[in-house]
Amino acid sequence: MKRLDTSAASFSADFATLLAARGSDERSVAEPVRAILADIRSRGDEALCDYTARFDRLTLPADKLRISAEEIASEAARVPSDLMAALRTAARRIETFHAAQMPKDLDFTDEDGIRLGMRWTPLDAVGLYVPGGKAAYPSSVLMNALPARVAGVKRLAMCVPAPDGVLNPVVLAAAQLCGVTEIYRIGGAQAVGAMAFGTDLIAPVDRIVGPGNAYVAEAKRQVFGHVGIDSIAGPSEVVVVADGQNDPRLVALDLLAQAEHDEQAQAILVTTDAAFAERAAEAVRKELETLPRAAIASKSWDDHGAVIVVRSLEEAAEIVNALAPEHLEVMLDAPRDFSAMVRHAGAIFMGRNCPEAVGDYVGGPNHVLPTSRTARFASGLSVFDFIKRTTTIETDEAGLRRIGPAGVALATAEGLDAHALSLSVRLEKN
Amino acid sequence: MKRLDTSAASFSADFATLLAARGSDERSVAEPVRAILADIRSRGDEALCDYTARFDRLTLPADKLRISAEEIASEAARVPSDLMAALRTAARRIETFHAAQMPKDLDFTDEDGIRLGMRWTPLDAVGLYVPGGKAAYPSSVLMNALPARVAGVKRLAMCVPAPDGVLNPVVLAAAQLCGVTEIYRIGGAQAVGAMAFGTDLIAPVDRIVGPGNAYVAEAKRQVFGHVGIDSIAGPSEVVVVADGQNDPRLVALDLLAQAEHDEQAQAILVTTDAAFAERAAEAVRKELETLPRAAIASKSWDDHGAVIVVRSLEEAAEIVNALAPEHLEVMLDAPRDFSAMVRHAGAIFMGRNCPEAVGDYVGGPNHVLPTSRTARFASGLSVFDFIKRTTTIETDEAGLRRIGPAGVALATAEGLDAHALSLSVRLEKN
Repeated sequence: MKRLDTSAASFSADFATLLAARGSDERSVAEPVRAILADIRSRGDEALCDYTARFDRLTLPADKLRISAEEIASEAARVPSDLMAALRTAARRIETFHAAQMPKDLDFTDEDGIRLGMRWTPLDAVGLYVPGGKAAYPSSVLMNALPARVAGVKRLAMCVPAPDGVLNPVVLAAAQLCGVTEIYRIGGAQAVGAMAFGTDLIAPVDRIVGPGNAYVAEAKRQVFGHVGIDSIAGPSEVVVVADGQNDPRLVALDLLAQAEHDEQAQAILVTTDAAFAERAAEAVRKELETLPRAAIASKSWDDHGAVIVVRSLEEAAEIVNALAPEHLEVMLDAPRDFSAMVRHAGAIFMGRNCPEAVGDYVGGPNHVLPTSRTARFASGLSVFDFIKRTTTIETDEAGLRRIGPAGVALATAEGLDAHALSLSVRLEKN
Repeated sequence: MKRLDTSAASFSADFATLLAARGSDERSVAEPVRAILADIRSRGDEALCDYTARFDRLTLPADKLRISAEEIASEAARVPSDLMAALRTAARRIETFHAAQMPKDLDFTDEDGIRLGMRWTPLDAVGLYVPGGKAAYPSSVLMNALPARVAGVKRLAMCVPAPDGVLNPVVLAAAQLCGVTEIYRIGGAQAVGAMAFGTDLIAPVDRIVGPGNAYVAEAKRQVFGHVGIDSIAGPSEVVVVADGQNDPRLVALDLLAQAEHDEQAQAILVTTDAAFAERAAEAVRKELETLPRAAIASKSWDDHGAVIVVRSLEEAAEIVNALAPEHLEVMLDAPRDFSAMVRHAGAIFMGRNCPEAVGDYVGGPNHVLPTSRTARFASGLSVFDFIKRTTTIETDEAGLRRIGPAGVALATAEGLDAHALSLSVRLEKN
């Protein structure tokens, strides 16, 4: 863990080092991913079966890669009823929030008498990637599938790898809860390729969403343009802004909740109170003694963790904006005064009673959020990932007389004569 | 030009061939673009000057790559006043439409007493790419810069190549009209790289937008993730749906307005009237005899043009949805009945008096639109390209008691103990 202090002479250099250290570069897997995608494109299901055998140690014919309705039902039935109830609570809240996101169409006639519009329509088919193995997260299923459903997407295909053939019953129960019935036990770049290009088994989709490892992220990057993708997900991050009036143990647990995700995850405490910084760092060490995922969390905290002591909340806000964090906790009495100074963050958790884990599961807003400083330009997953806009223009003869001549002048200036003629011949006829 | 007829036995195969022929693949320039980007990243302005000398035949020191305020003003002053008036008409209409697009924030307290929100904030810095040379389009400047301005973006940097040192006065006048003052005479992959990674001369931006050639498109693809980009622009397309009640010359001009853009452009007529199809094709041939850009337009029409005769408007709508065209003209008496059947299109032009050229210049909606069937999942440029969302969650102790236990159950099921503890320790304290 790094200690930084904005009052230190070395702060600018230290902070620049902290920022640069996170400049993730996925290029190292670009070539193997390119080869896998090309192979899926040319050999289809045969390649899909080969890679699944090789990477997931699961040898099955193509027609067994889809998980049958009976298998989904029998796996889902193994989930304890209290966990099912928790899934239902989460699903209800996620659905309600995302329904509130749905935008309205535009349709108006402007001062020149031109009728203009913009309408939102759902995508036809979406592919959901759900990580498997040790990171099989049922909450990811809810967070990816429900916004697509709310948006009106008709076909949802889901890919979840089953290493050694092992399925996660809670993941399948979550899918069932979202009405997802087309599920394949495949993963990695091969799953992304199959959904993007289609195989005999899997019809192509229009957009692929969902988090994954470096291979999945690179595969999404490479198929982008052929299909849509969501933001490229990097390691998870949290910035906790806290004053001295917090319980150090709660701050420590919130930092570790991020650190336990992944050795590459990053947890940063920004505080106005140097003594509190020490108490929180000590609390982190103490919790690591008993935390089950201490090995991962320690590595993350040691390599990427930071405690930054600032002289004012204004300085804290500057640091937050430079980090553009995926998650921001504001553990202050007036969290909204602080968050008004924040320009870039994926999600903000307001106050001392709202740990980031609320947002991972039951808050309602999406937990798929922009990482690696991409909150500067990107947003979390939402219904906007599953709808697109069509603009409309309608003019009658009178409207065309009003705005057409300016169009003719511009088309002529650009040397596009057929453009100009398509307007001027109509104007002459009117 | 291909002739297709939905009543022919070969239609499915013919249409599949038409679709497949457009499967553009930019991979051929991936390697040179990768090299240019790496060079810009390591050598900065020095590399930028080298590539500008090599590709644009323009040898300048780095500090002359930015176009000075005096140069912008003196170039813009050369634009005739009627053309300036046309630019102003276009700018006013584009600004008004994009202002109407701006979405509202969310802020509500839900049935569990949790306060949820979603706020939209502008990007800090955006890079606008404007093609130069023979395709220097002032309208592109308006269409890229104004939505960013409306969205509230503070810094707009623009790159426009100046082959042989030649600037386009109308492009600079359009930039001036939009309040863009940071303009560089650079282009290609090197301009995209400079804006994405930054050099001594050019501070990095957060998102790059604007159309360009295959190198620019591939460069945007490769920097995606490091910065945001808009959709990858391919060759332009139009589908004109027309009944027999149209003037064949107008339909021909609308088809040619697309074909004249680029030899790779595609213009397709879909009509319910086989005799009209022949009259329109004949009108295309006739116009090509006098059209100044006939060489380009002929090649586009010969190689990529198509006339598809359908038995019903329902069939026409199916074809439109499969093509997911960038531009759709509906030259029918009841264009909205037809467009209600259209699920995928970048922009729709309603009625016989609304050629696509209206939308290129003065309609108001953006002319940067999804090409190559990406309207299945992508949208035209808009204010949404220049703002991003931050979600917010606020709970008090009572709210946490209501939704926290479900979060604990899910975190425990996912094996994320610090997540669970960050909730349960707060619940115990309450």
